[in-house]
Amino acid sequence: MSVVKVIELISSSEKSIEDAIQNAVAEASRTIHNIDSVFVKDIKAHVKDGKVTTYGVICKVSFRLDEGR
Amino acid sequence: MSVVKVIELISSSEKSIEDAIQNAVAEASRTIHNIDSVFVKDIKAHVKDGKVTTYGVICKVSFRLDEGR
Amino acid sequence: MSVVKVIELISSSEKSIEDAIQNAVAEASRTIHNIDSVFVKDIKAHVKDGKVTTYGVICKVSFRLDEGR
Amino acid sequence: MSVVKVIELISSSEKSIEDAIQNAVAEASRTIHNIDSVFVKDIKAHVKDGKVTTYGVICKVSFRLDEGR
Amino acid sequence: MSVVKVIELISSSEKSIEDAIQNAVAEASRTIHNIDSVFVKDIKAHVKDGKVTTYGVICKVSFRLDEGR
Amino acid sequence: MSVVKVIELISSSEKSIEDAIQNAVAEASRTIHNIDSVFVKDIKAHVKDGKVTTYGVICKVSFRLDEGR
Amino acid sequence: MSVVKVIELISSSEKSIEDAIQNAVAEASRTIHNIDSVFVKDIKAHVKDGKVTTYGVICKVSFRLDEGR
Amino acid sequence: MSVVKVIELISSSEKSIEDAIQNAVAEASRTIHNIDSVFVKDIKAHVKDGKVTTYGVICKVSFRLDEGR
Amino acid sequence: MSVVKVIELISSSEKSIEDAIQNAVAEASRTIHNIDSVFVKDIKAHVKDGKVTTYGVICKVSFRLDEGR
Amino acid sequence: MSVVKVIELISSSEKSIEDAIQNAVAEASRTIHNIDSVFVKDIKAHVKDGKVTTYGVICKVSFRLDEGR
Amino acid sequence: MSVVKVIELISSSEKSIEDAIQNAVAEASRTIHNIDSVFVKDIKAHVKDGKVTTYGVICKVSFRLDEGR
Amino acid sequence: MSVVKVIELISSSEKSIEDAIQNAVAEASRTIHNIDSVFVKDIKAHVKDGKVTTYGVICKVSFRLDEGR
Repeated sequence: MSVVKVIELISSSEKSIEDAIQNAVAEASRTIHNIDSVFVKDIKAHVKDGKVTTYGVICKVSFRLDEGR
Repeated sequence: MSVVKVIELISSSEKSIEDAIQNAVAEASRTIHNIDSVFVKDIKAHVKDGKVTTYGVICKVSFRLDEGR
Repeated sequence: MSVVKVIELISSSEKSIEDAIQNAVAEASRTIHNIDSVFVKDIKAHVKDGKVTTYGVICKVSFRLDEGR
Repeated sequence: MSVVKVIELISSSEKSIEDAIQNAVAEASRTIHNIDSVFVKDIKAHVKDGKVTTYGVICKVSFRLDEGR
Repeated sequence: MSVVKVIELISSSEKSIEDAIQNAVAEASRTIHNIDSVFVKDIKAHVKDGKVTTYGVICKVSFRLDEGR
Repeated sequence: MSVVKVIELISSSEKSIEDAIQNAVAEASRTIHNIDSVFVKDIKAHVKDGKVTTYGVICKVSFRLDEGR
Repeated sequence: MSVVKVIELISSSEKSIEDAIQNAVAEASRTIHNIDSVFVKDIKAHVKDGKVTTYGVICKVSFRLDEGR
Repeated sequence: MSVVKVIELISSSEKSIEDAIQNAVAEASRTIHNIDSVFVKDIKAHVKDGKVTTYGVICKVSFRLDEGR
Repeated sequence: MSVVKVIELISSSEKSIEDAIQNAVAEASRTIHNIDSVFVKDIKAHVKDGKVTTYGVICKVSFRLDEGR
Repeated sequence: MSVVKVIELISSSEKSIEDAIQNAVAEASRTIHNIDSVFVKDIKAHVKDGKVTTYGVICKVSFRLDEGR
Repeated sequence: MSVVKVIELISSSEKSIEDAIQNAVAEASRTIHNIDSVFVKDIKAHVKDGKVTTYGVICKVSFRLDEGR
Repeated sequence: MSVVKVIELISSSEKSIEDAIQNAVAEASRTIHNIDSVFVKDIKAHVKDGKVTTYGVICKVSFRLDEGR
C-alpha cells in the first residue's frame, strides 16, 4: 500500500514560472525523495519600478512515503 | 491551549472508498498520534481495461499536537 | 407550482458512507415527507486510536413542499 | 506526445457509490478505450418513501487519445 | 446563430507551459476546426529524480460549431 | 442502467438570457436526443457603443445515453 | 438586535427566470413574513423534445426574524 | 444515532465580529437547544459617513437534533 | 498592445435581469468608452410584502484602455 | 436608477481585524463618498519573532455612484 | 533562492479571533523559525449552553526555509 | 497606515505568459506608481488556424496608495 503526502511550498524565480516550479522541486528534494508531481495552485509576480522582478508560484508538491519506513 | 495540525495525504484501496480512508489513517498513525478526524477533499478511481482497479482519496488528516512536547 | 426546500444535515455511521447518507434520510423522514434527493456536500471520518470509528456526511436534503399546505 | 480527453458523465447504482463509479466506466468503455482515471465531482442519492433508492455520481472520466488516430 | 462547444483536454510538454497549451491545440486541431480559445484550468509538473520532466496543463478548448452542419 | 453525459456549450441571443439557453438546446438537439436539463454556469453580455448587443450563457447540457446503443 | 435567517428553495416557472424567482418568494410568503431578499445561487432549465419547458432557480431566501417573537 | 442540523443566520453587532457571532447564537438559542458550533461563512461591515457602524456575519449554526423527539 | 480593465458594479432594475445588466452598462458608459463585455457574477432580488420589487446584478464590466492615452 | 461600484482594498492594523476594516473605510473615504458596506474577502496576519505584528484584511468596498454626476 | 513552506493549523481562544491566530503562531514558533504570515482560511466558534466558549481559526502558516539548512 | 488598492486587468502577449504579465504591469505603470505585485487569476490563449496566437492573463494588480495624497 503506497501513500502520497502533499506539502505546500511557495517558491520564486527571476527567470520564469517554469523555473520557479523547478526551484520548489529543488528545495523540496534536499530533504524529500520520491517527488512525483507538483500542482501549481497560484501564480504571482513581484514588481519594482514598473518591472516584474520575480515570478512566484504556490505549489502542492506530492511525494510517495517510503514503504519500508 | 490545544492546537491541531492538518496534513494532506493521498491513499488508495482496491476495495472501497472507506478502506482508502482507513489506509490514510493507518499510514499516518505510523508516525503520528492523536489523529482526530479525516476530511475527504477529493475522490478518484484508477481504471484499467474498462474496470476500476483502485479507489483513491485525497484527505486532510487532523491531529492534536502534544501539549507536553 | 411545486417548490422544493433544501435543508442541511450532518449524519454519521459506523459502517459506511452510504449508511451515513441513509441515516440522514431516516432522521429527516421523521418530520418531513416527500424527500426527493440528497446532495453529499462533504465527507469526513472520525478517528480513535488509529482507526476510523465513524464516517460522517454533510448533506443537502431536498423535499417538495406540500402543494395543499 | 500523449493528450488526455476528459468527459463528464452522471451514473448511478442501487448498491453503492463505488458501483456507480464502475457503471460510469462500464458505459464509457462501450465506445472509449484507454480510460485512465475517474474524478468524482459530486455525489448524490435519490430517495423514495424515506429510503435511498440509488446513489448517483457526477464523474470526470479521463482517457488517452490514440496516438495513431 | 453561432454556438461554441467547450471540451476538456490534458496535455503536456517537456519544454514549457506555453508549449503544453500549444500541444493541446495541435491535438484538438486534428479533428476540430474553428478553435477560438483555450482556458488553462490547472497547471501541473511531473517530477523524476528531483527534476521537472514535463509541464502539464488541464485546458478548456473552445471551438465554434459549423453553422452549415 | 441509465448514464447521462454532460457537455459544455456557449450560446447567445440578442433577446434574453432565456432565449440564449433555448439556443443552446436547439443547437445541441441537431445531433443529440434525450436532452434532460441545462445548468447555466455563467452569464455574460456583449456590449457595443454603450448598449448590450447579445446575452451569452455558458451551459452544461445533460442528455441520457441511449441504452440500446 | 435584528437577526436574518436564510433558507434554500428550488422553484421553477414555464415563463422566465424572473418568474421562477417570484414563485420562490410567493411560496415562502405563505408561512414567512419579512422576506428581504433572494440570492440566486444556480439557474437550470428542464428540457423536453428539444425545447425548454421550465426554468428553475436555486435560491437563498433571507427574512428578518420577528424581534417580538 | 445523532444527527446535526445546520441553519444559516445573518447577525450583526456594533461592537465586534465576535459579538456578532454571539448574537447569532443568542437569537438561535431562543428556539433551539443543543447548539454545538458556528461556522463563519462571510464577514461584512456596514458603513455610514465614513465610519463602520455594524459588523455583520453570515453564519452556519449547527445543533444536535433531540434523539427522543 | 491592448489592455482591458475590469471594474465591478452592482445595478438593479424593476423590470428584469437583462435590464439590470443594461443599467450597469449605461451607468458605466457615462465615463468609460470601449466597453466590450459584462460578466454577471451574482444575481439577487429585493422583496417587499411578498413580491420582488427589483432584480439586482453584480457585474464585472470589461473595457479596453485607450492605446493613445 | 442607483448603481453601486465595488473596489478592492488591502488594509492593516496593529490592533484588530475590526480596526483594519475601519482603516480601509477611512482611506477610501478620503476620495469616495457614499460608502455603504465592506465585504471582508480574506484575513491575514503578519508575524515577526513569533508574534503577530499586524492584522490585514482584503476588502471589497461598495459605494453608490452619485446620481447627479 | 528563498523558499517558503505553508502548514495548516487549527487553533482556538476563549477571548477573540485575534487571540486564536496568535495562539497558532505561538504553537508553531515552538519548532519553527522565520514565520512570515498567517492566512485565516476559516473561522468557527464552539458553543455551550447558548454561549460561545471558544473561537477557532483554521490557519495557513507560512515560514521561510533556512537557506543554510 | 499604508493601504493597498487592487485592480483587475486583462493583458496579452504573442510571446509568453510571463510577457503578458509584464505587459499588464507596463500598462498599469503609465498611470499608477508603487505597484507591488500581480496575482494571476486566470490564463487563456487565443487560437487561429490551429496555432496559439496570443497568451492572455487576467491579473489582480496591487499598488500602495500614496500616504501623502
